[in-house]
Amino acid sequence: MMIRDLIIKNRTYRRFKQYVAVDRETLRELVDLGRLSASAANMQPLKYVLSCEPARNAVIFRHVGWAGYLRDWPGPAEGERPSAYIIILGDTEISEFTDCDHGIAAQSILLGAAERGLAGCMIGTVRRKELSAALEMPPRYKILLVLALGEPAESVALETVGPDGSIEYWRDAEDVHHVPKRPLDEVILEI
Amino acid sequence: MMIRDLIIKNRTYRRFKQYVAVDRETLRELVDLGRLSASAANMQPLKYVLSCEPARNAVIFRHVGWAGYLRDWPGPAEGERPSAYIIILGDTEISEFTDCDHGIAAQSILLGAAERGLAGCMIGTVRRKELSAALEMPPRYKILLVLALGEPAESVALETVGPDGSIEYWRDAEDVHHVPKRPLDEVILEI
Repeated sequence: MMIRDLIIKNRTYRRFKQYVAVDRETLRELVDLGRLSASAANMQPLKYVLSCEPARNAVIFRHVGWAGYLRDWPGPAEGERPSAYIIILGDTEISEFTDCDHGIAAQSILLGAAERGLAGCMIGTVRRKELSAALEMPPRYKILLVLALGEPAESVALETVGPDGSIEYWRDAEDVHHVPKRPLDEVILEI
Repeated sequence: MMIRDLIIKNRTYRRFKQYVAVDRETLRELVDLGRLSASAANMQPLKYVLSCEPARNAVIFRHVGWAGYLRDWPGPAEGERPSAYIIILGDTEISEFTDCDHGIAAQSILLGAAERGLAGCMIGTVRRKELSAALEMPPRYKILLVLALGEPAESVALETVGPDGSIEYWRDAEDVHHVPKRPLDEVILEI
């Protein structure tokens, strides 16, 4: 598969086949893709917490936010929640500064997931203090991103931003999730 | 090619075949991979400036820093400099907050470059004010990352961090660039 096809396949999914497990070895292989990716000054301050057990998944689920633009949708219902998570942490004893390392790693991980037929969501809306406490996380680690993972159970359509200029994703009557992307000529700055 | 192979192939390169051009259409295709990648709240605040002309390349080159750990190496010499750049900007009129969007986009772009036999370097050491002024960049844009691109002209060896624990990359007597990565069991936190 060409990387472009994989990047297009790798949409953000928020509804999953919750009872189709993702095993720990798969999560380790995905983290390895992050590990092998670029890191500012090669410091590698990222650490990863894995979750593929229903009890831990439930704890994580309680502390993350879903799909801000879907105002009538509180997030995936029981049965369509993620079957695994990878929490990306910054190890402040290595570096206080992670710049965009977590973005680089998250993209590698989600491309690996897409290649395996899995899907995910990079979640930045996290009740960090509460989740750290719930997982008894030592204070040296700060939560950067939570990656939700599972087998996808929704359809996502990639589109170009329309004449109204809105970038808000939305769901149609058939429950398809639409994502408007700015056109290429708008994001390339001619200076 | 499996994504893991492409991620491994996608090492940071700092020496290039400077006189092998990278054309503007290739840069546009690479930016498109960033455009199609995830963005926090789908805001898509990133903008991109392209450079594949020697004069503009020279301006950009003057304002970026290279390989902090190679203390005796001031950066690529004439003839081994990048033949193109993509500057990733945050458009503050869209959002003041880009979180790790530039990391996500940069990884997509560099994976696309690696697939094409190109290589690159994500550069965070940038004299931002001076480069913005040199390119007459409107003040609404802030420079997040500079991606250097070209055909690679060096060998890079991926390794595991040794007993001394050093993560500093180094060059051996044969001029091979070695990059120590932390082992998988060290980056997965067992909590």
